[in-house]
Amino acid sequence: MIKLDEGTMPVHTDNGKIILIDQRKLPQAIEYFDATDIDQMCFAIQEMVVRGAPSIGVAAALSMARHLQKRAGEKNSPLAVSDLSKAKQKLDATRPTAVNLNWATGVVHDFASQLLKEQRTNIEFGKRVFQFAEDMLQDHLDRNKKLSDFGQAIIPQKARIITHCNAGSLATCGWGTALGVIRSAHLKGLKPQVFVDETRPRNQGSKLTMWELTEDGIPATLICDNMSGYLMKKKEVDLVITGADRIAANGDSANKIGTYSLAVLAHHHGIPFYIAAPLSTFDANIETGEEIPIEFRPEDEVRNIEGQPVTVKGAAALNPAFDVTPHQLIKGIITEQGVLTPPYEQSIREALKRNSAAKSLPQASK
Amino acid sequence: MIKLDEGTMPVHTDNGKIILIDQRKLPQAIEYFDATDIDQMCFAIQEMVVRGAPSIGVAAALSMARHLQKRAGEKNSPLAVSDLSKAKQKLDATRPTAVNLNWATGVVHDFASQLLKEQRTNIEFGKRVFQFAEDMLQDHLDRNKKLSDFGQAIIPQKARIITHCNAGSLATCGWGTALGVIRSAHLKGLKPQVFVDETRPRNQGSKLTMWELTEDGIPATLICDNMSGYLMKKKEVDLVITGADRIAANGDSANKIGTYSLAVLAHHHGIPFYIAAPLSTFDANIETGEEIPIEFRPEDEVRNIEGQPVTVKGAAALNPAFDVTPHQLIKGIITEQGVLTPPYEQSIREALKRNSAAKSLPQASK
Repeated sequence: MIKLDEGTMPVHTDNGKIILIDQRKLPQAIEYFDATDIDQMCFAIQEMVVRGAPSIGVAAALSMARHLQKRAGEKNSPLAVSDLSKAKQKLDATRPTAVNLNWATGVVHDFASQLLKEQRTNIEFGKRVFQFAEDMLQDHLDRNKKLSDFGQAIIPQKARIITHCNAGSLATCGWGTALGVIRSAHLKGLKPQVFVDETRPRNQGSKLTMWELTEDGIPATLICDNMSGYLMKKKEVDLVITGADRIAANGDSANKIGTYSLAVLAHHHGIPFYIAAPLSTFDANIETGEEIPIEFRPEDEVRNIEGQPVTVKGAAALNPAFDVTPHQLIKGIITEQGVLTPPYEQSIREALKRNSAAKSLPQASK
Repeated sequence: MIKLDEGTMPVHTDNGKIILIDQRKLPQAIEYFDATDIDQMCFAIQEMVVRGAPSIGVAAALSMARHLQKRAGEKNSPLAVSDLSKAKQKLDATRPTAVNLNWATGVVHDFASQLLKEQRTNIEFGKRVFQFAEDMLQDHLDRNKKLSDFGQAIIPQKARIITHCNAGSLATCGWGTALGVIRSAHLKGLKPQVFVDETRPRNQGSKLTMWELTEDGIPATLICDNMSGYLMKKKEVDLVITGADRIAANGDSANKIGTYSLAVLAHHHGIPFYIAAPLSTFDANIETGEEIPIEFRPEDEVRNIEGQPVTVKGAAALNPAFDVTPHQLIKGIITEQGVLTPPYEQSIREALKRNSAAKSLPQASK
């Protein structure tokens, strides 16, 4: 089992420092990256030192809180509401597709504004805002476990599962969403087996998901992204589960590039396709997936593999980092408020309402 | 334009030597590999120094002919029919999926048996058998051009085409099948644009197809295999064309792993999916794709990328090198006897009959 201690948590705090596992280096090495400084955190998010929508969100929240705490302590320039917005905007600009980032910095922004209104002392402001972000980390972990518990109930015995990218501990502040469900099924003795898409161009499947599953002793087989159809046709696959980076009000889900193709293939073969994501991934402000901005990353990620050029010099390349799977192709969305099913407008609205009522930090964006 | 001279032909002869472009080294370097010796040729086919069903077939035919010529010249052990079978079997064992290999060595075998029966002198035997294999090379080139001419007629103006793997000059002894069609469309002024799947795990798309298209000045954009669905959904794709390694009597077509997924995606989006292949790719001995043997290549091809390990040590991996696209997903099969359409049993049978009648070397396997 992956130990959910500080050493293997993708994001943890250490005496006020914000420490990330450098996910670019896995699985060859476990190295740490100090992202306490907000500029370092922006770099870490952009360069994918930390990645995965929930991990990015919480890391950004911690960084924003730490930044505000520091600013509040500066004697000659009192902290203003505009500082909150500036910090939020800076972090939000790093990656456009996942909503968790936006949501997490928004929650910190609102909490900090409230504290400012209450005219707390600088020391109390700083302490409370950082504690708030630290609580968010623990809250995510709790939600992932709850979500996974709902999710494992839909996993048949000895299920052969395809997953894409990494929606595990590393992506989600611990435990995981898609991998969390698989992990919980494994712990329950359901003996899941996983086919792991390598997930070009960044190979999060080969590098991160294979590492997590191996650490946990869950049988995992690495495949190239173009092999899923072959396996489905051979009746070697029982279901597909992936995470998500943003889910629209109608259930359309943005996730790592290639997820949409997997969903179409699953549909063609009558194989259920599930999304697993905490409610912080839902963006009730947008109606359909058409409105989700898709990040295009550097073409060199496609032209080079592991730093080696693999194509002709100066070749044109495309690198959309995400795609959108329409809700019609999704059998269910696994959340900490249960497994949502169509019609999604209704089930999502109700889950967000229950979540708000259950209160607690953090609430879904609305 | 790729110069179809000896320097850029994937297989050529030079004073009795059989010279291959080392396709493992492209596009970083053009290096040559002497595969005159039959053992060297077996190595070259297995390790993919030469790849692509038609190129493999012709290279094997040349190697077999050269080997028999040499054997015929050995004073103390006269050439027997069993030598023919032995040489054929050795070459056939290198790669199981493509039928062209089997077919080409079969054609040489039958021709050489005939010469043996006729009790030609050793010198005449050797000369004629090698000339026969050399003629096969030229014949392939002629057929590819004819096929491409039929194919370009179905390409709309400014078509945005996805192709997979490499079915170009390098794969087909020159000119190309899928890429040949695109090349002919380009020469006719139809302005095709190509999205090139990188084609994991061997990256023939990034390495070979991108190189050929760039040399020809045909607009080409490299994508990862998992991006095709995204592009189709965005209505950025007008058609898909790939080559094939073996086509059953009912039209089911084996081709590079990932082709089946592309065909399913094209079907889902109402985009026509074509196969382009010479008649030597058809295997009238088998009724459906179920009977086509699928080669599994070393798992390290998936675990490592460009020699760098990308996953945990000792990870399980799968590496099927081919998949089978059922005929129902294929809009047409472009051959040197025209574009075959459903019902394929009939159109394929008739094309093979016309081909036999037109006779000439080489005939399709039957």
